[in-house]
Amino acid sequence: MPEQDEAERNAVDRGAADPGVALIVGAGPGFSGSVARKLAARGMSIALASRKPKPQEAEAIAARSYAFDAGDAAATARLFAEVERDLGPPSFVMYNPSARVRAPLVDLVADDVERAIRVTAFGGFLVAQEAVKRMLPLGGGRILLTGATASVKGMPQSAAFAMGKFALRGLAQSMARELQPQGIHTLHVVIDGAIASPARTPASPDAHLDPDAIADAALAALDLPRSAWSWEIEVRPWVERF
Amino acid sequence: MPEQDEAERNAVDRGAADPGVALIVGAGPGFSGSVARKLAARGMSIALASRKPKPQEAEAIAARSYAFDAGDAAATARLFAEVERDLGPPSFVMYNPSARVRAPLVDLVADDVERAIRVTAFGGFLVAQEAVKRMLPLGGGRILLTGATASVKGMPQSAAFAMGKFALRGLAQSMARELQPQGIHTLHVVIDGAIASPARTPASPDAHLDPDAIADAALAALDLPRSAWSWEIEVRPWVERF
Amino acid sequence: MPEQDEAERNAVDRGAADPGVALIVGAGPGFSGSVARKLAARGMSIALASRKPKPQEAEAIAARSYAFDAGDAAATARLFAEVERDLGPPSFVMYNPSARVRAPLVDLVADDVERAIRVTAFGGFLVAQEAVKRMLPLGGGRILLTGATASVKGMPQSAAFAMGKFALRGLAQSMARELQPQGIHTLHVVIDGAIASPARTPASPDAHLDPDAIADAALAALDLPRSAWSWEIEVRPWVERF
Amino acid sequence: MPEQDEAERNAVDRGAADPGVALIVGAGPGFSGSVARKLAARGMSIALASRKPKPQEAEAIAARSYAFDAGDAAATARLFAEVERDLGPPSFVMYNPSARVRAPLVDLVADDVERAIRVTAFGGFLVAQEAVKRMLPLGGGRILLTGATASVKGMPQSAAFAMGKFALRGLAQSMARELQPQGIHTLHVVIDGAIASPARTPASPDAHLDPDAIADAALAALDLPRSAWSWEIEVRPWVERF
Repeated sequence: MPEQDEAERNAVDRGAADPGVALIVGAGPGFSGSVARKLAARGMSIALASRKPKPQEAEAIAARSYAFDAGDAAATARLFAEVERDLGPPSFVMYNPSARVRAPLVDLVADDVERAIRVTAFGGFLVAQEAVKRMLPLGGGRILLTGATASVKGMPQSAAFAMGKFALRGLAQSMARELQPQGIHTLHVVIDGAIASPARTPASPDAHLDPDAIADAALAALDLPRSAWSWEIEVRPWVERF
Repeated sequence: MPEQDEAERNAVDRGAADPGVALIVGAGPGFSGSVARKLAARGMSIALASRKPKPQEAEAIAARSYAFDAGDAAATARLFAEVERDLGPPSFVMYNPSARVRAPLVDLVADDVERAIRVTAFGGFLVAQEAVKRMLPLGGGRILLTGATASVKGMPQSAAFAMGKFALRGLAQSMARELQPQGIHTLHVVIDGAIASPARTPASPDAHLDPDAIADAALAALDLPRSAWSWEIEVRPWVERF
Repeated sequence: MPEQDEAERNAVDRGAADPGVALIVGAGPGFSGSVARKLAARGMSIALASRKPKPQEAEAIAARSYAFDAGDAAATARLFAEVERDLGPPSFVMYNPSARVRAPLVDLVADDVERAIRVTAFGGFLVAQEAVKRMLPLGGGRILLTGATASVKGMPQSAAFAMGKFALRGLAQSMARELQPQGIHTLHVVIDGAIASPARTPASPDAHLDPDAIADAALAALDLPRSAWSWEIEVRPWVERF
Repeated sequence: MPEQDEAERNAVDRGAADPGVALIVGAGPGFSGSVARKLAARGMSIALASRKPKPQEAEAIAARSYAFDAGDAAATARLFAEVERDLGPPSFVMYNPSARVRAPLVDLVADDVERAIRVTAFGGFLVAQEAVKRMLPLGGGRILLTGATASVKGMPQSAAFAMGKFALRGLAQSMARELQPQGIHTLHVVIDGAIASPARTPASPDAHLDPDAIADAALAALDLPRSAWSWEIEVRPWVERF
């Protein structure tokens, strides 16, 4: 595998002080954007992948942006090859995309359900696999997977989203058990509630999660040494029932 | 939907005393075979669907057998249409198929992972949806989904299976919440251990689950009145760590 | 230990066909009364222990009744000695008592909290220990512990009840792991909802759990062979959020 | 309640810039000592309560130390009165003590089990209640409860410890739900593994949790704004099975 040789070379060339490369898949304005900004502020080189790249937001943190369709194996391989060529192998990879369909079970369209699972979970596998291939030669890395209430609760009229998010959680737990000994930290963040956004005008500042706070929670967990890793954290505002 | 009108007619024609029709998808010699035999002994008309139907086993319980590929939407619709035409709308439907791939994350083949999710979870959705469409006009029904250790634990080298089984569990929980008010009982059985089979010669009779015992556990749960439904039960021999 | 010798003698004298002795601690009109009636109908000799014995209810199922204060070590030893002397060593023991205090955390009275934990959980330990001492020489037995929503969810203004019920669940899980190899089946039943009773007049028959249904669920689980034991089941009416 | 008036006065006198008072109950050399040092480094005034105070360790972080028996209501009230008098009302309180007994269920001594529950869980309630009484007038606060593997898994020969730790977790969850709206953050840390200590000479640095890392994890979670609070985090080295 020539990529891995190159990866090792890059790791050596950059030296220990290089804060490295972070790839944010499903980059948007909320939690993922916050993670990207915070990693940029730490000096990491940032790659943003999303269906519709927003060059201005990338520019603000000196990031490169890539057009990307989640859930496609060839597109995933291509994305990692490009990021590696442009910035080097990522030691931090976040998978954020999801697709949901809200309807009573009998009204769900099979193709929509298939797509919800593919974008939400299968795409996470594809990205995680490419990430791990590059992290193993680096001697470790961090992988962040975005969960939701639906990761741990299958709600009415939400079967498609629950299937995707439960599956992503199964991936996260399997990766945590398999890869912690190899120095790769997988973290699944269950965001149990709605994330604040400019589009929302909540009645109370307590009602919606601050994306920066979720990012702080995730990065704090991912900063810990290997003897005290969590594979999952859960965050919620008090208005949520759990 | 003409099927539903017919279903209602069938329900009326058969009267309250008719024990009804059970469809076992992924019929094999273990847990599913045991459920089929026990339902046949209660007088239900049995339909067995599997990739390679075994006419002799079907004959032993006077069942009809159907060739069926799990995870295919058109095949699923066809199966239910045929069962309904031959026996009437099923009031008991079990989904048992699963596919697994065992390998380190980096060695998994994307197509195998996609297939594992499709057979294990997406096929369960397709079958459950066709089942619910027919159970709503009947005023209720029972849906049994087969879980495994991998439904609640993502193990190393088992990401693909965990994704499928976690997703199926998410489906089950969503269905339980959505459909219990409509009289449809969804039960997810976490079989935490290996099932005894003639092919296995265990060191101890304690080491493997007796398929008849799992079937008894599942049917006992599904026999309960609506005020005391479980959406999940877990069974294991003591040799399993949990 | 002379009790155990006697227990063994009793076991031999009664022969394999004897359905044995069941001790119901915290016997009342709901779930525990239902379990008692169903075990009596199977031919078991029934001992009912409660703070205020109700002779008429005991008579209806030919049971002996014992006055008993849950949570007291000496009283527990005495109860088992009396039951053993009167009926023989119990092979089925149920622990049902609980005490709760409902108040904001700051308003709870320490003695009430101590009592809630003692009656709900510590008393369960005392009874389970006496039970297991007698079941080991019998070669096995069944122990049923009554859980509630509070066993798995600590709710506001319910810290005392949550502490007791969480603790009882910890006992159940530890016993299940330790004693399943010795043939003792511990079952913890999470009753997630209100139990129907003559005193309640629910708006809907769906709103309250039928005590007979919970008893059926528990006994069905406890009737299974050892290779397919559950240590916990959960039952709820659909009106409950979970 | 004169304490609360005094508390309010103290809060006002100290001003917003005062980092406040932290009370560490069950102060020792491991996780709790690490939390104490890190809070001292932030400028907080530290009170250390333990059965056998170690003046040297207290001196190193300019802390006051208090002799204290966990699980005693009068002693708990006295401790808080003294801390309040000496330093002011604590806005950060940690409860760390636990007692365990390791034995087969039938060999457990009732008094030891009672004590395990009292020290591990009931003492946590007593401390939490005194803490909350003082935090409500302060407009908020942080409460840290130490969990273990036994908080979520009842293991063989460990019923007493499981009962205590499960109960403490029930308390934590109830407090989280009840008090998050009032600005009090309750965090339960499940430490799933053995903590490194000078007394231990582990075969691998991966085998034992670094107490500083657990403290970092806990403080990072407790530093988050209210819209993204966790009530529980779990940390473990990879050698632990989960």
